[in-house]
Amino acid sequence: MNDILAVGSVALDTIENSTGRIDDTPGGSLSYFTCAAALFKKVIPLCAVGTDFPPFSEAWGTDRKFDKSNLSVEEGRTFRWGGKYSKDLDFRQTLFTELGVFENFEPVLKGRAKNAGFVFLGNISPHLQLSVIEQSRKDSFKALDTMNYWIDGFYEPLIEAISKVDLLFINDQELLHITGRKTETSSILDILELGPRYLVLKKGKNGAFAFSKDRYSFAGIYKDTALIDTTGAGDSFAGGVMGYLASTADPAKTRIGWKEVRNSLVYGAAAASYAVEGFGLSSLLGASKKDIEKRASEIPL
Amino acid sequence: MNDILAVGSVALDTIENSTGRIDDTPGGSLSYFTCAAALFKKVIPLCAVGTDFPPFSEAWGTDRKFDKSNLSVEEGRTFRWGGKYSKDLDFRQTLFTELGVFENFEPVLKGRAKNAGFVFLGNISPHLQLSVIEQSRKDSFKALDTMNYWIDGFYEPLIEAISKVDLLFINDQELLHITGRKTETSSILDILELGPRYLVLKKGKNGAFAFSKDRYSFAGIYKDTALIDTTGAGDSFAGGVMGYLASTADPAKTRIGWKEVRNSLVYGAAAASYAVEGFGLSSLLGASKKDIEKRASEIPL
Repeated sequence: MNDILAVGSVALDTIENSTGRIDDTPGGSLSYFTCAAALFKKVIPLCAVGTDFPPFSEAWGTDRKFDKSNLSVEEGRTFRWGGKYSKDLDFRQTLFTELGVFENFEPVLKGRAKNAGFVFLGNISPHLQLSVIEQSRKDSFKALDTMNYWIDGFYEPLIEAISKVDLLFINDQELLHITGRKTETSSILDILELGPRYLVLKKGKNGAFAFSKDRYSFAGIYKDTALIDTTGAGDSFAGGVMGYLASTADPAKTRIGWKEVRNSLVYGAAAASYAVEGFGLSSLLGASKKDIEKRASEIPL
Repeated sequence: MNDILAVGSVALDTIENSTGRIDDTPGGSLSYFTCAAALFKKVIPLCAVGTDFPPFSEAWGTDRKFDKSNLSVEEGRTFRWGGKYSKDLDFRQTLFTELGVFENFEPVLKGRAKNAGFVFLGNISPHLQLSVIEQSRKDSFKALDTMNYWIDGFYEPLIEAISKVDLLFINDQELLHITGRKTETSSILDILELGPRYLVLKKGKNGAFAFSKDRYSFAGIYKDTALIDTTGAGDSFAGGVMGYLASTADPAKTRIGWKEVRNSLVYGAAAASYAVEGFGLSSLLGASKKDIEKRASEIPL
């Protein structure tokens, strides 16, 4: 069962940067993750949206393999996020957040979601991430992403959730934030001692590292990317990584090993390279699995 | 030929900290390195001292294996350094530096020094380090140590010297200083792309890491150390590492591999743990090879 159960936010984003602006475009961590990972394997997204969200096949494309059984459409408005980026896209400011029906979202796994071999816990409350871990298959390969907001306000449940996953996706600032240290290397050891076997350290335009307890690897970025909107780059990266991993082995039979994690980085980078080439999901949705594989093969590893 | 050719400073140190003060005690990077490494293999120290330096067998002990043929005693005063430490020993201030005969030191390798299988380039001018590299055996295993002073004022020759060695010893601040980056992980790649196959990242009381292009390892410190004077800890660490490495293989026949570098960390940490237990060389000189090995076996790796 190499399905990928994925939980995260599904939102309508309003994004403004020096190249333009878009209103109420489908986004959120789960949207980007799904549109990247579902090129490789069947994704079972788990979230709630409002009645104002477009049909999923319209928002996430018709050529992606995803199972809608764990998505619920509820009376009310979809989670909305508005953000404005600095000219170089290195910084962003949240302009507004309206939780909508997401405020009362309680993840309940249904049907084949309970049997998924891969679980992605996107950037949502650690309490919800823990609930999904509880309900999911014990021997599934689990990965978690988070952000500063949860490190600040939900430290203990976040650490508990991290301790229960196989892989942590994190950027360099968040890494130091979690451990309270000044240096990355000691922080990496701290995380790997908490429980995860792998840590993927995302560095945006400076590439990404993967670490196990005794190995590490670096992958650059796809160099000919036309940078338009970096929203969802990290979630698309995670989608490429998890999609690739799910296509390599069944974790119930084979332990996901270093070689697979190392090789997955370029699929993450390739998915992210598409995600940033247009506003919202548009450019990622225009990419096929072959497109991702072609770019992945051109990224230095 | 597993001799270790080592170049660095030999000084008379005046050290002041919250536990006491000592005047004109034998020190300098080469003294500490030699007293640690010469427990494992024959060291050929290369330096010049003044006529006021005590006999080497008195300064460096009689049970260490070192070859005096590349040490010169010159008319004039020995290099002198005076420093004062903060209460927690984390910071130090240089009070004075008198170069003495070291000002005109030009390394010229004699006899078996030219044939040494291991070369340690201690913390001296990169120009002198390059000169020693030029004169030493091509297939020798070379390691280099440096400090902020040389990074600031001698950047280009330092980078050239680093590009020609197998292993770089460096602490975390110096690492970021050299690369001009904000994060360790990208800096580590930069250094390994310059040429060294290994990087040993020293973190004082937080242990040390070794990195190759695809592997890494961490070693803690010896936990029962009575911290008195941290002068020479890094050089003693390098001495333990290089001494151990020289005892494992002849680099002309066998390439020094990851396993050896990884295992060497605890010998470095053990040597450093002795060095810091007394003022100057006193405590390190009181340690036998067996003492170092015993502590090494108790350090987490």
